Amino acid sequence: MASSTQNGVTDLLARYQAIRQQTEKICAPLTPEDSVMQPMADVSPPKWHLGHTTWFFETFILLPNLPAYKAFHPQYAFFFNSYYNSMGSRIARSDRGTLSRPPLEDIYAYRRHVDAEMEKVLTDEKYLQNTQLAPVMELGLQHEQQHQELLLTDIKYIMSCNPLLPSYQLKPTTVSGSILQKQPQNEWSTVPAGLYHIGFQGEGFCFDNELQPHQVYLAEFQARRTLVTNAEYLKFIEAGGYADFTLWLDEGWQISQQQGWQAPLYWLNQEDGWYHFTLHGLEKVDLEAPVTHISFFEALAYANWSGHRLLTEFEWEALAQLHANPLNEGNFMESGMYHPVPANLPEDAETAAQLLGNTWEWTYSGYFPYPGFVTAPGAIGEYNGKFMVNQMVLRGGSCATPQSHIRPTYRNFFHADKRWQFTGIRLAKR
Amino acid sequence: MASSTQNGVTDLLARYQAIRQQTEKICAPLTPEDSVMQPMADVSPPKWHLGHTTWFFETFILLPNLPAYKAFHPQYAFFFNSYYNSMGSRIARSDRGTLSRPPLEDIYAYRRHVDAEMEKVLTDEKYLQNTQLAPVMELGLQHEQQHQELLLTDIKYIMSCNPLLPSYQLKPTTVSGSILQKQPQNEWSTVPAGLYHIGFQGEGFCFDNELQPHQVYLAEFQARRTLVTNAEYLKFIEAGGYADFTLWLDEGWQISQQQGWQAPLYWLNQEDGWYHFTLHGLEKVDLEAPVTHISFFEALAYANWSGHRLLTEFEWEALAQLHANPLNEGNFMESGMYHPVPANLPEDAETAAQLLGNTWEWTYSGYFPYPGFVTAPGAIGEYNGKFMVNQMVLRGGSCATPQSHIRPTYRNFFHADKRWQFTGIRLAKR
Amino acid sequence: MASSTQNGVTDLLARYQAIRQQTEKICAPLTPEDSVMQPMADVSPPKWHLGHTTWFFETFILLPNLPAYKAFHPQYAFFFNSYYNSMGSRIARSDRGTLSRPPLEDIYAYRRHVDAEMEKVLTDEKYLQNTQLAPVMELGLQHEQQHQELLLTDIKYIMSCNPLLPSYQLKPTTVSGSILQKQPQNEWSTVPAGLYHIGFQGEGFCFDNELQPHQVYLAEFQARRTLVTNAEYLKFIEAGGYADFTLWLDEGWQISQQQGWQAPLYWLNQEDGWYHFTLHGLEKVDLEAPVTHISFFEALAYANWSGHRLLTEFEWEALAQLHANPLNEGNFMESGMYHPVPANLPEDAETAAQLLGNTWEWTYSGYFPYPGFVTAPGAIGEYNGKFMVNQMVLRGGSCATPQSHIRPTYRNFFHADKRWQFTGIRLAKR
Amino acid sequence: MASSTQNGVTDLLARYQAIRQQTEKICAPLTPEDSVMQPMADVSPPKWHLGHTTWFFETFILLPNLPAYKAFHPQYAFFFNSYYNSMGSRIARSDRGTLSRPPLEDIYAYRRHVDAEMEKVLTDEKYLQNTQLAPVMELGLQHEQQHQELLLTDIKYIMSCNPLLPSYQLKPTTVSGSILQKQPQNEWSTVPAGLYHIGFQGEGFCFDNELQPHQVYLAEFQARRTLVTNAEYLKFIEAGGYADFTLWLDEGWQISQQQGWQAPLYWLNQEDGWYHFTLHGLEKVDLEAPVTHISFFEALAYANWSGHRLLTEFEWEALAQLHANPLNEGNFMESGMYHPVPANLPEDAETAAQLLGNTWEWTYSGYFPYPGFVTAPGAIGEYNGKFMVNQMVLRGGSCATPQSHIRPTYRNFFHADKRWQFTGIRLAKR
Repeated sequence: MASSTQNGVTDLLARYQAIRQQTEKICAPLTPEDSVMQPMADVSPPKWHLGHTTWFFETFILLPNLPAYKAFHPQYAFFFNSYYNSMGSRIARSDRGTLSRPPLEDIYAYRRHVDAEMEKVLTDEKYLQNTQLAPVMELGLQHEQQHQELLLTDIKYIMSCNPLLPSYQLKPTTVSGSILQKQPQNEWSTVPAGLYHIGFQGEGFCFDNELQPHQVYLAEFQARRTLVTNAEYLKFIEAGGYADFTLWLDEGWQISQQQGWQAPLYWLNQEDGWYHFTLHGLEKVDLEAPVTHISFFEALAYANWSGHRLLTEFEWEALAQLHANPLNEGNFMESGMYHPVPANLPEDAETAAQLLGNTWEWTYSGYFPYPGFVTAPGAIGEYNGKFMVNQMVLRGGSCATPQSHIRPTYRNFFHADKRWQFTGIRLAKR
Repeated sequence: MASSTQNGVTDLLARYQAIRQQTEKICAPLTPEDSVMQPMADVSPPKWHLGHTTWFFETFILLPNLPAYKAFHPQYAFFFNSYYNSMGSRIARSDRGTLSRPPLEDIYAYRRHVDAEMEKVLTDEKYLQNTQLAPVMELGLQHEQQHQELLLTDIKYIMSCNPLLPSYQLKPTTVSGSILQKQPQNEWSTVPAGLYHIGFQGEGFCFDNELQPHQVYLAEFQARRTLVTNAEYLKFIEAGGYADFTLWLDEGWQISQQQGWQAPLYWLNQEDGWYHFTLHGLEKVDLEAPVTHISFFEALAYANWSGHRLLTEFEWEALAQLHANPLNEGNFMESGMYHPVPANLPEDAETAAQLLGNTWEWTYSGYFPYPGFVTAPGAIGEYNGKFMVNQMVLRGGSCATPQSHIRPTYRNFFHADKRWQFTGIRLAKR
Repeated sequence: MASSTQNGVTDLLARYQAIRQQTEKICAPLTPEDSVMQPMADVSPPKWHLGHTTWFFETFILLPNLPAYKAFHPQYAFFFNSYYNSMGSRIARSDRGTLSRPPLEDIYAYRRHVDAEMEKVLTDEKYLQNTQLAPVMELGLQHEQQHQELLLTDIKYIMSCNPLLPSYQLKPTTVSGSILQKQPQNEWSTVPAGLYHIGFQGEGFCFDNELQPHQVYLAEFQARRTLVTNAEYLKFIEAGGYADFTLWLDEGWQISQQQGWQAPLYWLNQEDGWYHFTLHGLEKVDLEAPVTHISFFEALAYANWSGHRLLTEFEWEALAQLHANPLNEGNFMESGMYHPVPANLPEDAETAAQLLGNTWEWTYSGYFPYPGFVTAPGAIGEYNGKFMVNQMVLRGGSCATPQSHIRPTYRNFFHADKRWQFTGIRLAKR
Repeated sequence: MASSTQNGVTDLLARYQAIRQQTEKICAPLTPEDSVMQPMADVSPPKWHLGHTTWFFETFILLPNLPAYKAFHPQYAFFFNSYYNSMGSRIARSDRGTLSRPPLEDIYAYRRHVDAEMEKVLTDEKYLQNTQLAPVMELGLQHEQQHQELLLTDIKYIMSCNPLLPSYQLKPTTVSGSILQKQPQNEWSTVPAGLYHIGFQGEGFCFDNELQPHQVYLAEFQARRTLVTNAEYLKFIEAGGYADFTLWLDEGWQISQQQGWQAPLYWLNQEDGWYHFTLHGLEKVDLEAPVTHISFFEALAYANWSGHRLLTEFEWEALAQLHANPLNEGNFMESGMYHPVPANLPEDAETAAQLLGNTWEWTYSGYFPYPGFVTAPGAIGEYNGKFMVNQMVLRGGSCATPQSHIRPTYRNFFHADKRWQFTGIRLAKR
């Protein structure tokens, strides 16, 4: 964002266009029928994502600032509002899958229309100088990037429900060597005791939930340099980890029994071993890649079984401050892998790998406000704060996260039983 | 069917083609997204209807009789089996709406493929002479006609769930005069006491549930010559019929309270009066047309309020034997009205109108086997018999029923709380 | 009732006292805690039965007719109204088990209080001459007898939910020889074709649902002289009847799968064979006794498996007209067996046994109004008519039915999946 | 416990007897029917509490240590195990209310039997010297004290479900003056920034979840000296707090809408003002007393509305370290008030009142393990750790907590929507 305001019109417009196009690129392989699927309540139809991200710009930028602008369609606010009570009534979340109309082509027309208006805004000094507008503009872009990740994970879930197990996209044939090297296992980084500054402090964008920066005292601990691999997780499975209640939280034990969990989501046990469904179709499980699609309950059961524990979100952030790999070596959305890959362990003995990208890492921290947290007034204030209970914090981004969207202070959050995101495990010990 | 076998190849083939084309004509106005909607468990996605009716011919004609025939796709049996336990596992009824793939175009290819094979069968004397094949062939055609009606009622429900209230099709601009004349109200036909022959006895096709023909003794009764109109039903609404528990069965009262029924399904009370959603979009309620989209519970509450009663299915059949209008004057699917129309009351003072077409008529008869009923062996035997409990019989066909599909002995059946079919009310008194 | 009115005060008072005492005799073995149990929604706590039957006399006799009478307690109407909308609001049926207060002793005080007032009524010529009062009085007595049967079946269900499997009462040590003799099996009675008079026509009491008497035409059929025995039913179990969907109605198949039915309710498979829980505790299944505690769905599946069918309620009544055993030889509540016993087959080759008593017999007839049925005005009219949908008719009474309460025209009704009543099977063939 | 081991046999035995008798004293006013009520799944029947606390001593003290001891009844382990998977199968929590047998008198006999054996243990030097036994013994006593509080809150809920609104006990006529004086409002205590030692460090008993002691850095904050009163909460109600979604967490808003929350649990709006149901029956709301029976969601909505916030559990503990009133001035179970009372504000301007006793105080801290937390091996390890997700921490004890049971490091925990405990609100600001 600093560079955007320095370079003026061009940069911000270019970012806008690139992010908007990326969303449509993700949806390009879908049939119109794919675009309306909602096989579970957590999943939103891709058509809805396409409309909702557009509605965000229309509602928070165009309508309040362009006097002559009329809403593209009087009922789209009802269709595409997600959860902003301030913005009026909306379709129930679980009913998003009943919306066959407007057809997909109308949603693309809606995008074209809003994009054209937005491009006027982004080339008009009057708006570019408006300091009230800049943060909302930035929020709209960050918001759309969040939905890019959700699009990928929702599409994966949608495809997995179909008995044909269709492949969403072919796998990239060439992959950067930096993400494929082998790793020595069971190595640890040490973080010394002391007061750490937690929360976002730099220039540029952050979400309100990363504020205020504050101090947290941590005792010394050690963290695994790499994520838990499929090979390691398979030992837990084979040792009966899913059948040993002493490893589980009570709530996790109950849900795992009710839903019959025996392995991560998307895993299938075939005659010649374990397979899992990926965005490239059914594939053999790569033993050296990080395990993914596990709930917090499974992550914690695994940690208990291994004799270790999970990090808190504060420990994770301190680890990232001291021992993070450079950001540009991660496995993000841009790689097109859409799946975690084995670690390229840095030679420096203390540097941790895979902190950013690959999988979101469950922490044993509830999603609560930082000291001094305040919500913004109006609808924007509904963005994060109202979800601060009964969810766990995840850190680090995944293989479905846009690279420019993530940073070490970023706090993601999901309920402890969710498995359809690219979630994984990093261990700690004292 | 008599004519088919008399005239040989040509007739049966022509019937097959006409019925198959009619199904696709019904689906022509739909978008691909429309074709996968399942907004309630009773409704099946139109794409599923298109595949299922095709699967029926493939499974019961082609696969058992054409040695060289291979299933079009190995998993379509799983997708498109409705409820035939004999034919193996299948997707749960309530999950039909999760099937974005195969795409709509593949289903049409499936239809082309099966149609081509079926046309070979229908022009090959070897098969035409096969007396085992003929009834299954006939069943397949009748089955597809049943699904034509379900397609129309399911499409109507799908469209009604969309806040845009889209029109499925424009209304026909010219309508046969025979179905639009005004009627005198409150006229009655008399059926004398005696033993009546109930059930199908003629040549041609009938479903197993219309057999065996048998005698039923009826006391004398009178039946209304016309269906209850919207004007009449409005009086019931305005008199507080929906708030007076003494008119209702206990189970009906509970469900009407839970679901907040205040009027028939699809009715909306606007400032300038009652509207209802039709397959041509939102329209003003025509006071002289028959009321429709009411449950059995509402039909009975209305009858109780009016001081009359509903007919039994045996009384209805006796009435049709003595006083039916000619079949060709009804308002069936072919009119394109897709909605009941006012009665054209015959001049003959005893002849009843609207017996066939317009709306299915709820009877106060449970759906049970006739004496001597036997189910066919194998999967075909699952067609009707296994549903013979906790459903009510409806008679007479509707404005969504193909004209060639209906006859006075035809027994339709739905649960007493269902409202999305074109259902209506005829009164009786003793 | 004829004798009551002939002999005046004494008889009616004596009947009242005998029936009221019988209810309390049934509850004598219960602990206070037993008296408030409601382990499923169908079951009412015994304390509630004790209060409700008393409330009936208070509400329909004392309050409308005795000017000086005040309700025993202002809130008992709320506690003890079962389903009479006309009589005001009431506690939800499924919440009856939350009523620890009033304590059991207060309910007995309530009974004493109402009984004292009722005895005044029953010895006062002014009331005895009141022809409006007599039928309500009779209904109150019949109603209390109905609840005696429900008390026994509810107590059985309550006891069966307790892991201690407590015995409600010791078994009678001496049993009338007339109900224990061995039977030849597979014998049939014939009922010729013709018009039969169905419904109650005599003097004395009947429920409104037994009216109006009317004619029904029946084709000739044959009915088994005895009920299906446990030995016969075991063959069905061992032949895989619970796993063969072709024998079942679709709805029955689904519920049996969901609930895991493998045998009648209360049956337990132990190492040395089948046991079942009875009101005398856990006992070995008597192979020669009639099977009981089966749903309509199981009864029909058994009939299908055996190659026969169930009777309609009209056939059952005609059979009883032609071939019934004398009423006084049945196994009713008064025997204290509280369980069906083997048949004592009459020597007359056409006489059927076990028609009255032992088990209610499921018929393949829905519970609907007879022609000309009218409901009484006011709350009494809510007694039967409003339940006339989605239930099946049972005939003949059971081992928990008071002998003076049953007659061949009596129509009982339950949902097709219910199993906690003493229900059984009689077969028919044509 | 220190004093117990110093003074030997007598003290520990006396404590055992006093605590066991207190439990029975709490149950003395109950009828047998009261003792089996379970009107919602969270509530356990009082009879179950009586048995379960006894089972704890039998299972963890008598059976493993007394070679000759036989279980009082072979099935009581099944009845009275709460959630210890290690101790075998058990009755489903929601089915505890179906257990009419064993009768209440048998449970008291069970208590007598176990008490007699325990008294042998507590007077036998062999056991008293056993250092393994002492902590389990102590846990049993603490456990029984926990159930005393649950008994009171469960009894309150049970009584409140009865339309008679029975009083559990008369109110004490004389109350210690120390708990009834008036308070100045809106006064604050200050806690300076710094590292605080959190967790239990002293001699004597604590639960495993209070360990390990560790340091937490806190910024400076201020806390209200008194709990939020009914008068203050009423202003929130009257200002529309229950209808303003901006004050609520999203999950709290949804549940409050679904359940129709308009005031704390047990409140009734009558013509002459607000009443609430107490253990002494229906009473007028005392405006100066602390508000209670509110969920975490309501506590947070109130805090948001007031412009303040809730404390974290660490802030609460630091506040108690610096500014707590002496423990012996609180309103605990022993007062017999069974309801919070107005504060007696200390003269010292920084001392906070009502920290211990009156109401549990919701904190904005999730219930998670302290750093270094380890679970004990075996069944005892299931005591706390397995519940450490999706619950909020409460601090300080209530008017239903035994005085000897509470301490400033005590961590209680409930789901954020629970309202049947004596819960309240303390505000913080920075």
